[in-house]
Amino acid sequence: MASKFFSERNLRFLLYEVFDVVSLTRYDTYKEYNGKLFDMVLKAAMELAEGLLWPIFQEMDKNPPELVEDQIKVHSSVRKFMGECGEGGWIGAGIPFEWGGQQLPRMMTIGCRFIFSAANYSSSVYPALTSGAARLILNFGKEEMKKTYLPKMLAGKWQGTMALTEPEAGSSLSDITTEAEPTEHDYYKIKGQKVFISAGDHEAVENVVHLMLAKIKGAPAGVKGVSLFVVPKKRMDEKGQLVSNDLVTSGIFHKLGYRGCPIVQLSIGDNDDCRGYLVGEPNRGLLHMFQMMNEARVEVGVGAAAIASAAYYAALDYSKKRLQGRRLSTKDPTLPQVPIIEHPDVKRMLLFQRSIVEGALCLLTQCAKYADLASVLTGEEKEKNELLLDLLTPVAKSYPSEMGLLSISAGLQCLGGSGYCDDYPLEQYYRDARIHPIHEGTTGIHGLDLLGRKVMMSHGKAYKLYLEEVQGTIRRAEKSEELQAYGQKLRQSLERLREVTAHLMEVGKKGNAELFLADATLYLEFFGVICVAWQWLLQATTIVKALANHPNGAEGNFYNGKFFAFRYFFEYELPKTEGLAKRLMNSDGLTVEIEPDLFSD
Amino acid sequence: MASKFFSERNLRFLLYEVFDVVSLTRYDTYKEYNGKLFDMVLKAAMELAEGLLWPIFQEMDKNPPELVEDQIKVHSSVRKFMGECGEGGWIGAGIPFEWGGQQLPRMMTIGCRFIFSAANYSSSVYPALTSGAARLILNFGKEEMKKTYLPKMLAGKWQGTMALTEPEAGSSLSDITTEAEPTEHDYYKIKGQKVFISAGDHEAVENVVHLMLAKIKGAPAGVKGVSLFVVPKKRMDEKGQLVSNDLVTSGIFHKLGYRGCPIVQLSIGDNDDCRGYLVGEPNRGLLHMFQMMNEARVEVGVGAAAIASAAYYAALDYSKKRLQGRRLSTKDPTLPQVPIIEHPDVKRMLLFQRSIVEGALCLLTQCAKYADLASVLTGEEKEKNELLLDLLTPVAKSYPSEMGLLSISAGLQCLGGSGYCDDYPLEQYYRDARIHPIHEGTTGIHGLDLLGRKVMMSHGKAYKLYLEEVQGTIRRAEKSEELQAYGQKLRQSLERLREVTAHLMEVGKKGNAELFLADATLYLEFFGVICVAWQWLLQATTIVKALANHPNGAEGNFYNGKFFAFRYFFEYELPKTEGLAKRLMNSDGLTVEIEPDLFSD
Repeated sequence: MASKFFSERNLRFLLYEVFDVVSLTRYDTYKEYNGKLFDMVLKAAMELAEGLLWPIFQEMDKNPPELVEDQIKVHSSVRKFMGECGEGGWIGAGIPFEWGGQQLPRMMTIGCRFIFSAANYSSSVYPALTSGAARLILNFGKEEMKKTYLPKMLAGKWQGTMALTEPEAGSSLSDITTEAEPTEHDYYKIKGQKVFISAGDHEAVENVVHLMLAKIKGAPAGVKGVSLFVVPKKRMDEKGQLVSNDLVTSGIFHKLGYRGCPIVQLSIGDNDDCRGYLVGEPNRGLLHMFQMMNEARVEVGVGAAAIASAAYYAALDYSKKRLQGRRLSTKDPTLPQVPIIEHPDVKRMLLFQRSIVEGALCLLTQCAKYADLASVLTGEEKEKNELLLDLLTPVAKSYPSEMGLLSISAGLQCLGGSGYCDDYPLEQYYRDARIHPIHEGTTGIHGLDLLGRKVMMSHGKAYKLYLEEVQGTIRRAEKSEELQAYGQKLRQSLERLREVTAHLMEVGKKGNAELFLADATLYLEFFGVICVAWQWLLQATTIVKALANHPNGAEGNFYNGKFFAFRYFFEYELPKTEGLAKRLMNSDGLTVEIEPDLFSD
Repeated sequence: MASKFFSERNLRFLLYEVFDVVSLTRYDTYKEYNGKLFDMVLKAAMELAEGLLWPIFQEMDKNPPELVEDQIKVHSSVRKFMGECGEGGWIGAGIPFEWGGQQLPRMMTIGCRFIFSAANYSSSVYPALTSGAARLILNFGKEEMKKTYLPKMLAGKWQGTMALTEPEAGSSLSDITTEAEPTEHDYYKIKGQKVFISAGDHEAVENVVHLMLAKIKGAPAGVKGVSLFVVPKKRMDEKGQLVSNDLVTSGIFHKLGYRGCPIVQLSIGDNDDCRGYLVGEPNRGLLHMFQMMNEARVEVGVGAAAIASAAYYAALDYSKKRLQGRRLSTKDPTLPQVPIIEHPDVKRMLLFQRSIVEGALCLLTQCAKYADLASVLTGEEKEKNELLLDLLTPVAKSYPSEMGLLSISAGLQCLGGSGYCDDYPLEQYYRDARIHPIHEGTTGIHGLDLLGRKVMMSHGKAYKLYLEEVQGTIRRAEKSEELQAYGQKLRQSLERLREVTAHLMEVGKKGNAELFLADATLYLEFFGVICVAWQWLLQATTIVKALANHPNGAEGNFYNGKFFAFRYFFEYELPKTEGLAKRLMNSDGLTVEIEPDLFSD
């Protein structure tokens, strides 16, 4: 097996050179940190990933969780990893010091999540879900609740989850039917069914804490009647002992991939004895939950880019070692065979992968930076960063998810028949990654979110700010001789984005919502390609500066290689926007018009 | 589970209405047939598929073949199916009457293969490989050999295989090292290793007959030293008893999908006692083998389109039943949820799938028709059909394979989380289909074949004939008011194909083979989209005629639905050629230039 699953060099390039994470230490929130400490954090994450996660990622796939007598059995490493994550401060990485967290910037936590996910995606989900749930309790829970849950969760002893989906409520969360009945005590009685709950139960922890959506009896229909509860698997009795909370794991799903982590079905309150504790305000649960969901969406993007990264390095390793065929220019069969990395078509597939992995990771780090700046700035600057993060969240979730699939497929293809067999990890990456366009909102949902909500929110303010951001990068790039032509290309693409968006807004104004949003998924794809081109141009400005110093050896290879990946993106990926723009300008209503019956034969 | 895996109506539309298979019965070769008999053939294929193959396709995936004491155990249905294929004449469907075959046109055998593959791809491979191997013996084997092998193979008692790939010779077949040593008898002694041999061994048959490539001792290096042999697992001794032929199954591959069929490793002649019998002329083995390979390539396309068909019908079934969300135009949460097929984005995904499945199957039937006409015509007309088939074979193999993956992925996406779980068949289709861009030549190899060989062969004659074919369809379409605009669009795309091809030919003339072929895979994709658009326009001319008679009920839905799929292809798929053309016109040598070291960090 290849020994590399991500590029430390590239991660450092993004964190330190492109986005200057150290600059955050000038703000009070992060003043305890410096570059050296950040280095130590990265090093510790790598050690944990290499030592514990990477060696077992195939083994976990082959021995998936099982439901045995109401209890989910998982791989023994999960307990160990959760323990290490507790001790090492990984679960509380983004939690304030006062609650026992590490108060690290989001850029750093995203970077570490990338390392863990590249080593072993399934494993990385357990602590991440716990972090997200803990942050939700921190932000919206009562003091008492924080004291009860946060220490256990941050220590990796209690698992956190997001319990949203129900059999009849997936994409349409407003249709949940899980019910919360008020009591005269501080709790509600919860009753219902939840499905597709990641890490929703397992024996590697003492307890599972569900951040669960339910409707308080008599609440209004739809979104406005949804509330958020903490519903633990086991609750504390008067003596402080954990006792059953009438929450049963009634099923486990057998999945294509992502098999190291159980996805379960929960039966809640079958004996009318399940207690749930309100988080935040009644009927505002979906709003509260969106905090965790938005963070989780960016992290899905990180997971997708991470699996694509591991696939890239596995494909690269194979391509360097595998001898097959001869250069197209010298077909003499008596010559020895060459490594397949000598073939332009294999180099094309590798450049494609690298351009996706590093372009996507750059965008994700950019989003993390917006989150970090929003957390330290105030007033208009804070709002600006929040708006940009909001606007780009559907892109940061979906672009890596969708393009990651194609990238991994290209990696598998580099290995030919070996890629199809489990002697190599590519077939697992191919399976694992397929979850990403589905969970945390399907790509279709994110298309609707981007075009139907985000582009227009605050009277288009976020969208305008975004255009300014991209234009700023173009202006800086155009000052460099090497980048002038690429700046021009992006300028043209941005003009196309304006045209397409303006056209769609016109359609939207006419009031036919279906026609307006019919191709929202394609708009998301179109927007995403241009967005990642922007991130590549941003990287290129740093690359060009570094190359001016004529680095040699590994450093020279790094910057020169990245420059090729940048060019690849502009020369092979950006042209895809031409066909997409043509389609998006054509609101012929084809998919609105066709009646369901016409699909029938 | 959905009960439908293909559209009989559409298959009949292609065979009878678009390509008029009955017209072949005017030729001597097919004069024993008529429409009624063809109907009976289709009906029999459907009964076999529905009765035997479809009910067990998931079960076979869950119980893959195992290697137990040098013997591959397969699902018990394989023996039954091979027996039925023997008795029913399916293995000999394309073999002349005089050898006990059915002498059916290729259009019919392709149609039946499509039915079998849609029901159960893995199962369909056993008889198909046996057919292909039998045809090779028929065309190039000696009389004695035919008498020995054909009856057993056609009866489904002996399995046929293609034994080409070796550990160090996959895409580069000229590098095989399996050796054939002449003896004073009528056989050679064979020694070597073969890998990735589909159906290369199993206990559902009495014997396995490998059509194997090997090099006769002292043969020239490269392609020109490759010969073709029949190497049976068991050979006949003097008493007519089957005895071991020193050919051992040394391994089985564990695959991502396509698990109902074993792929094995063979050790040949470890005890210096493996006999192989020359087929055709020495050192012309690859040329002979290309007959079977070219047929198999088209059949890979059929298999890919077939799996995509089954995935489409499973996604359609789910989309009609699954209630989720409300129309975008009426978001009142108190209204009942609607079937997701009401959502434009779901309809878009379904139309995409249908446009790929039916477009690909049309192209495959077109190729079969070229083969049929080549078999009954003479002189220039025969040559014309042969050239067109040759030119389009890499497209017919690769377009369904590559686009089938995306189509199936869209099908899986329609099901959301359920698509990722094995309660539904989508995840299996997603795995099964991933083999197609790999086996029978990777997509990269077919790109080289199309651009580097086929477009230029016979001084570009095939390419010119192809342009004329497409232009003929455009001219016919432009006579119809409904199709005029689409004819124009295809005319423009064809013009773009000319420009791109001319540009690449110019690059090629300058002698830099790597630069010329660097984007051959993208050229194949570009060529493929236009080619399938042509096939959709061809279908549309028939659809428009049928709609002129105002069909109603199911017939009306069929033709109207198809017309939407046709429009979808032109409005959503054809525009992709814009970006591809832009890239292909830019021979910047990016992937040629980058050195392997630059990928390193």
